[in-house]
Amino acid sequence: MTTIDNPPATVSDAELEAGRRAYELDRKHVFHSWSAQATLKPMTVTKAEGSYVWDGEGTRLLDFSSQMVNTNIGHQHPKVVAAIVEQAQKLCTIAPSHVNDARSEAARLIAERTPGELNKVFFTNGGAEAVENAVRMARLHTGRRKVLSRYRSYHGGTDTAVNITGDPRRWANDYGDAGVVHFFGPFLYRSRFYAQTQEQECERALAHLNEVIAMEGPGQIAAIILESVPGTAGIMVPPPGYLQGVREICDRYGIMYIADEVMAGFGRTGKWFAVEHSDGVIPDLITFAKGVNSGYVPLGGVAISPHIAATFDNRPYPGGLTYSGHPLATAAAVATINTMAEEGIVENAARLGTEIMGPGLAEIAQRHPSVGEVRGVGMFWAIELVKDQATREPLAPYGGTSDAMNAVIGECKKLGLLPFANYNRIHAVPPLNITDEQAREGLAILDQALEVADRSL
Amino acid sequence: MTTIDNPPATVSDAELEAGRRAYELDRKHVFHSWSAQATLKPMTVTKAEGSYVWDGEGTRLLDFSSQMVNTNIGHQHPKVVAAIVEQAQKLCTIAPSHVNDARSEAARLIAERTPGELNKVFFTNGGAEAVENAVRMARLHTGRRKVLSRYRSYHGGTDTAVNITGDPRRWANDYGDAGVVHFFGPFLYRSRFYAQTQEQECERALAHLNEVIAMEGPGQIAAIILESVPGTAGIMVPPPGYLQGVREICDRYGIMYIADEVMAGFGRTGKWFAVEHSDGVIPDLITFAKGVNSGYVPLGGVAISPHIAATFDNRPYPGGLTYSGHPLATAAAVATINTMAEEGIVENAARLGTEIMGPGLAEIAQRHPSVGEVRGVGMFWAIELVKDQATREPLAPYGGTSDAMNAVIGECKKLGLLPFANYNRIHAVPPLNITDEQAREGLAILDQALEVADRSL
Ligand SMILES: Cc1ncc(COP(=O)(O)O)c(C=O)c1O
Ligand SMILES: Cc1ncc(COP(=O)(O)O)c(C=O)c1O
Repeated sequence: MTTIDNPPATVSDAELEAGRRAYELDRKHVFHSWSAQATLKPMTVTKAEGSYVWDGEGTRLLDFSSQMVNTNIGHQHPKVVAAIVEQAQKLCTIAPSHVNDARSEAARLIAERTPGELNKVFFTNGGAEAVENAVRMARLHTGRRKVLSRYRSYHGGTDTAVNITGDPRRWANDYGDAGVVHFFGPFLYRSRFYAQTQEQECERALAHLNEVIAMEGPGQIAAIILESVPGTAGIMVPPPGYLQGVREICDRYGIMYIADEVMAGFGRTGKWFAVEHSDGVIPDLITFAKGVNSGYVPLGGVAISPHIAATFDNRPYPGGLTYSGHPLATAAAVATINTMAEEGIVENAARLGTEIMGPGLAEIAQRHPSVGEVRGVGMFWAIELVKDQATREPLAPYGGTSDAMNAVIGECKKLGLLPFANYNRIHAVPPLNITDEQAREGLAILDQALEVADRSL
Repeated sequence: MTTIDNPPATVSDAELEAGRRAYELDRKHVFHSWSAQATLKPMTVTKAEGSYVWDGEGTRLLDFSSQMVNTNIGHQHPKVVAAIVEQAQKLCTIAPSHVNDARSEAARLIAERTPGELNKVFFTNGGAEAVENAVRMARLHTGRRKVLSRYRSYHGGTDTAVNITGDPRRWANDYGDAGVVHFFGPFLYRSRFYAQTQEQECERALAHLNEVIAMEGPGQIAAIILESVPGTAGIMVPPPGYLQGVREICDRYGIMYIADEVMAGFGRTGKWFAVEHSDGVIPDLITFAKGVNSGYVPLGGVAISPHIAATFDNRPYPGGLTYSGHPLATAAAVATINTMAEEGIVENAARLGTEIMGPGLAEIAQRHPSVGEVRGVGMFWAIELVKDQATREPLAPYGGTSDAMNAVIGECKKLGLLPFANYNRIHAVPPLNITDEQAREGLAILDQALEVADRSL
């Protein structure tokens, strides 16, 4: 594997100066996602390589966030950078209506990896557009409108995608007319079904889904969309049998099953697609983005089963975008997928999960009264922080933050680690090709930083 | 200006072979935008440089489409390619929450060029996401829901954007609940207001808009969104005074004015933004994409006025995306904008429009009974084809195509020109830095190809 074990520890004065100017211009001219603009104090990134980023002071941070959980092969992987350079010098862009070799090859490589026969690919620029188009395909294929999605989920920022989302970012965008119904998914630690075991949680979550469908009208429902492992909302690995149950329910009612693999896909869970952890489950549509090319160039897409693709054989598909199948973006995907295969990066994620992350986090959970639960698979882990292990009261409210959470995040950074945080959770989601040593170092920092949370109790 | 007057006329055997394989894989694995998949026979592009592309047979075509009207600086401009290469080797991607120098500098350069004080920029991956977010900002800023948009317009492929769109691509996506109302804009050649002059058309179109607002409830309307020059829908340059009138109406009722400059912006009309042709008109929000970096890397965005930005100073803005302000995409924008400024590409578009395209197309209109009207500005021109100059019956129906139109398009390609076509129109929208000679050559080919249309009458 291409790993960069000992990256340079310094940032040049010129880079630091560029960083200071970038900060000034950012505060003047850049409007940021999901934020109140006046109170932001964003971190400057002056450099990134392998599993590390450097901040505005030139301090090196171990990247346990993979940014937005997208740099699955780490920063600046030389093989992917080389492929982008080569494609840039050859052909940056071409309209989606034409045939292009990078696009064709990316589609082939993705189709080769999707479960079942999902072997047509519609390319988008990112995850939200993938979800918008998957839902559109399901609606037009079935002739139905309603979409079912779980609470505690994230599916993107465009209107339809954010209304499918089951998190507070939907609220301000919800005019009650997106044709979406939310249900509760399995989440044993905060069971809404009074379950004691994973088996019970699974069975009751499926019964709940069945009842919601009965109440909403099975014949009205175009699709059920589920992250194969919900990501930003908390990395709740579904109990064995759950996704099989969802597939059966969909089959029974002619509902399309959309697996959102934008965050969980492309190796994050130790398989190419997270849905492969559930034997025999083949979704009708798979949405992807992020890991497909580690986000080096914006790219997303939908993998489509033959029966849905056939709906648009002789009837125009009413969706599209200027940059569908963008040559530079798909060339980066070709290089990323080939590199992941050559270097055994997906297998490495599985191994690291089993050998280092899982056991290491289990020990952390043992040691800290502020840790309610750790859970995950592969390189996809959540640490759920609580005020009280008995009541499970979260360390920050749903949709909010708290001084205690901010203190933990601050401590992580002080100790040299960049975490991914959401409400009362810290996610440990490093690149899949991080070295064993770096992974252990990150866990050690988390262990130490969590003492700040313990002290807040 | 960097122009490539005599690009190599040949494609290597290896490139042709790669093209054949790309075609095969495309038909197997690539799901195309806006199309019935089974009947597609897409053109293969094996190479592109300057104002030319080469097809699957190695035949060179003069690109009068700029692809999706996005390669405003032509294909493979060496300065932009160099900037992409440099940024790829430095830093491909970083989360939107961090500060990055390429993003900051792109925001500064864009803010510097927008009219008025629109000096905050929210970056997206493309035009549809820009429109989604502009509409969201307007809705939350005003606390109102309805959006007014014109028939004969295109605003993108995501659900909200396509419902704002006033063209047949909306139909299959319209569930009647997007909160959008369509009105008729000025279009003298097919006047819906029985107007004889541009003055009349302008006055009556504004009266119509005023009445639609009165009927819909001025207090309900969040935004009016208008392409400053409607692009795909037909390049209808607004009559003098129209956009000023729209601005006044918006001011009167507290409605936000969104100028969609995704296609018309960044030099296409001979100014940085097309709205600058209308003295004194400053929109509240401007959406952009395409020309901002010629589409070399997917990028779009919204330029935001201070009063709207202030709404989200202390209240989180509920929108975002993984690749907002992507370093590679914004580095390409920095290089593109700087190159356009250094090489006088915007001024060149204005000059070419006045000196070559305008007069050349006027002559063509004179000569061909199949040409109903030519219209445009800068490097943004439409040729409207009709069955009969008296009745103005289009050569293909609205939303459709016809044998005659297909024959004209086929003839253009046979003669070495790649046109942009929509329904009964051929658009002449080459790169803004095309040479005078190439522009003349393209017009000569159009002139010859239109004989096919004449013969069909
Ligand atoms: C599961 C899932 N779906 C969709 C999206 C939206 O992707 P994007 O931000 O690229 O639009 C995300 C982004 O985090 C995601 O995690
Ligand atoms: C005026 C206008 N707005 C929005 C869009 C949508 O942009 P994109 O295809 O990048 O989503 C387009 C695309 O052609 C456009 O012309």
